Amino acid sequence: MADPGNGSEGQARTGEAGDSQRVTTAKQAPWLGLSIPVVLAGTLWFLPAPAGVDPAGMHLLAIFVATIVGIILKPLPMGAVAMVGIAATAMTNTLTISQSLSGFGNRVIWLIVLAFFISRGFIKTGLGARIAYLFMALLGRKSLGLGYGLVATDLVLAPAIPSNTARAGGVVFPILRSIAEAYGSRPDDGTSKKMGAFLTVTAFQGTVVTSAMFLTAMAANPLAAELASAQGVEITWVGWAVAAVVPGLVSLMVVPWILYRLFPPEIRSTPEARDLAWDHLRKMGPVKRSEWIMLACFGLLLTLWILAGPLGIHTTATALLGLVVLLITGVLSWDDVLRETGAWDTLVWFSALVMMASFMTELGLIPWFSETMGGVFGGFGWVTAFLGLSLVYFYSHYFFASNTAHVSAMYAPFLGVALVVGTPPVLAALVLGFFSNLFSSMTHYGTGPAPVLFGAGYVEVSDWWRLGFVVSLANLVIWLGIGSLWWRLLGLF
Amino acid sequence: MADPGNGSEGQARTGEAGDSQRVTTAKQAPWLGLSIPVVLAGTLWFLPAPAGVDPAGMHLLAIFVATIVGIILKPLPMGAVAMVGIAATAMTNTLTISQSLSGFGNRVIWLIVLAFFISRGFIKTGLGARIAYLFMALLGRKSLGLGYGLVATDLVLAPAIPSNTARAGGVVFPILRSIAEAYGSRPDDGTSKKMGAFLTVTAFQGTVVTSAMFLTAMAANPLAAELASAQGVEITWVGWAVAAVVPGLVSLMVVPWILYRLFPPEIRSTPEARDLAWDHLRKMGPVKRSEWIMLACFGLLLTLWILAGPLGIHTTATALLGLVVLLITGVLSWDDVLRETGAWDTLVWFSALVMMASFMTELGLIPWFSETMGGVFGGFGWVTAFLGLSLVYFYSHYFFASNTAHVSAMYAPFLGVALVVGTPPVLAALVLGFFSNLFSSMTHYGTGPAPVLFGAGYVEVSDWWRLGFVVSLANLVIWLGIGSLWWRLLGLF
Repeated sequence: MADPGNGSEGQARTGEAGDSQRVTTAKQAPWLGLSIPVVLAGTLWFLPAPAGVDPAGMHLLAIFVATIVGIILKPLPMGAVAMVGIAATAMTNTLTISQSLSGFGNRVIWLIVLAFFISRGFIKTGLGARIAYLFMALLGRKSLGLGYGLVATDLVLAPAIPSNTARAGGVVFPILRSIAEAYGSRPDDGTSKKMGAFLTVTAFQGTVVTSAMFLTAMAANPLAAELASAQGVEITWVGWAVAAVVPGLVSLMVVPWILYRLFPPEIRSTPEARDLAWDHLRKMGPVKRSEWIMLACFGLLLTLWILAGPLGIHTTATALLGLVVLLITGVLSWDDVLRETGAWDTLVWFSALVMMASFMTELGLIPWFSETMGGVFGGFGWVTAFLGLSLVYFYSHYFFASNTAHVSAMYAPFLGVALVVGTPPVLAALVLGFFSNLFSSMTHYGTGPAPVLFGAGYVEVSDWWRLGFVVSLANLVIWLGIGSLWWRLLGLF
Repeated sequence: MADPGNGSEGQARTGEAGDSQRVTTAKQAPWLGLSIPVVLAGTLWFLPAPAGVDPAGMHLLAIFVATIVGIILKPLPMGAVAMVGIAATAMTNTLTISQSLSGFGNRVIWLIVLAFFISRGFIKTGLGARIAYLFMALLGRKSLGLGYGLVATDLVLAPAIPSNTARAGGVVFPILRSIAEAYGSRPDDGTSKKMGAFLTVTAFQGTVVTSAMFLTAMAANPLAAELASAQGVEITWVGWAVAAVVPGLVSLMVVPWILYRLFPPEIRSTPEARDLAWDHLRKMGPVKRSEWIMLACFGLLLTLWILAGPLGIHTTATALLGLVVLLITGVLSWDDVLRETGAWDTLVWFSALVMMASFMTELGLIPWFSETMGGVFGGFGWVTAFLGLSLVYFYSHYFFASNTAHVSAMYAPFLGVALVVGTPPVLAALVLGFFSNLFSSMTHYGTGPAPVLFGAGYVEVSDWWRLGFVVSLANLVIWLGIGSLWWRLLGLF
């Protein structure tokens, strides 16, 4: 159920959280899971192309649908399914080999791949843990404050760690567990609600929100941006961040408080937590050279990403620079880069999906679907139609075990329909993009960190779902309410 | 001194040969090795562009030269240097970010990356070792026969294992060492010449020749093909193999015999080697399901590569199919693919070099160089001029520690000059391609397997160089003599 695209691979190397919690994939022969996509593709293959759609478009649709179903059923890991999809486009002559491989040179894909490499530096240097202990020392007098401290850590790391599994599972979770255990709260002996359960749901719901706040905070965000770009809607790093900052910060304030009310920890006052944090910080000693470099590199990235427009430096060029700085200063070794398997995994599945999506638009499928569906929704006016579309998009995540699978299956057609009914393009692309993260609040399998944190055993599945549903409502109210006012102010509609 | 491009990374995972022999890279700060390329680039940057060359071309030349010098001086591993080069093209606005990343979608690069993945199957299933023991059982009655057996193993694996380090270091070397030790020949106690020294040089010179025989037998071969393609000369998989088969097989017959004459093992009759091989084969048991699949996949690859033209299936599409077969049947796991760091390393350095080389042609640099040098060499007639060019190309390998560095620095300009003086294009591209492998016979650092096999300690450096020079002459006589007759027959000139 883990989402490899959100870095369960990368997380596997973070050690503490990874080894005990890693969700293993089934080992049996993948024949059944493979046969469903194959039969599906075989059927779609022979459907006649509607007017305006290239005949090769139907073949590509067949391969695309089979790939998405394969990603959902997981007869093989997502990357392997993607590789089968790429091979299918080339071997059937649906696309030329150069077209089949075109995704691998995509600049947005490399933004994420490079961010995966850079984020390794936060974990390797210990800077991520230091930030977490610092927030704990500052905010940790009460258990609600501890929750806010974990969320703040996640927020600070979010712009440069696109694997939310690495953030919440790799950096935050080990510290969460050590605090909970220091207060005698363990998963299996009836003490889980003392502290651990509350911190777990808070850290999880926190990373769901921080993932929505930056283009580079979750692996599938740039996929959404790229799918939007294929329909002529350009989303920049700074455009995404500015639109998300107000509703995002409100969510980060409100959600832990809601969880504290509905699911309170038995221990509420935690004066010793601050001493614990200071102890850890003392043990870590002064900030190391490698941490200073990591911090400077992070500052450089944020500065150049924010100033990308005026300076004319592409976001991906900045990420290249960031990696080069870490390599030259020796903060990362080339071996660290080569062994960052989560990055290579992302390169493969992302390239397959972006390649297929862009040729589906080019061959006329997405425009045809949008026109057809737009005719159905057109009677309502764009506000009602878009609200309906985006709520369907949101709650259908109960059926998905990965943000990436959901985004690749539904983002492009839903955006297409939203545009046809007259939704302002950037607004439509951004809201669907934000929802592509917020919808993971609901289940214990919907995004990479969910199975990691749920798997720790502090929280019952019924609590997870109940709280998840309440948080989903809260997020919708905040993002559609306060968010709309903010976006109006920004002139997005 | 190891050549990461030829798979020292991949080889590191093969275990037996890797752990003890791995050449470690320097750990000190890379400032000196970095400053030379930087100063060089800074100087070239401000040179005026000659007529017909785009001003951006000089900037690209500066970055390219700095990258090549960086690959030779190795202040950082080759892949990291390549990443710095890519970043430099993008950050200086010499190229757009999409141009800078364009190499990553190149189909010839993916042919090699995919072949790296597929070759893991030979090692993982044990099929490679089984083939080696089989040849040993068939040919191993005398030590010369054992040498031929090792070479035959290397030849059989060559079409699908583009890392000659993985072939000679990962598959052949562990078996070589176990035979030598069975005959009491060890590196350090005066027994090296009993058997081990002869087998080591034979295996090494064998892999040098097999590397020259297939487009997919050495990582830099497709780089040569791609550089030729940029100058309008197309080399196919089957075209390369057909042109190389006759001189290649002659070399594989003659070279071990020469080594046997000049550097004879003290033990010449080895009847027990066959029993040893049969023992190993018995211990391996019947051919496993995974080995059968690997064998079938290998047959499929060779068939489709040979029939690529008539069937209209691109070589890279076939390689995709091969990987998919291994993934679906479970011979390789997706994790095997992600952990094949040699492949990802190759993807990065290869993409950087191909990207720069193709834009150097596009921006007018290679045509300008070829025209200028062609004027100098033009007076001689193409036979003399090309002979001179190719011998300079060949023996300049004394100054290179990697096939890839040599090919990326010298192949394109030398081919350009050869074409200007009137050498038949395909002949010129192929001969320089073959020489890009054969020239590694001479030193103990010139190609990936050299430091691995030399590092085992069986052979003195003076013997290595003396024999290497003799073999280089033998290969030149065979390839230029018998080769020329064969190429004439094929109509290449």
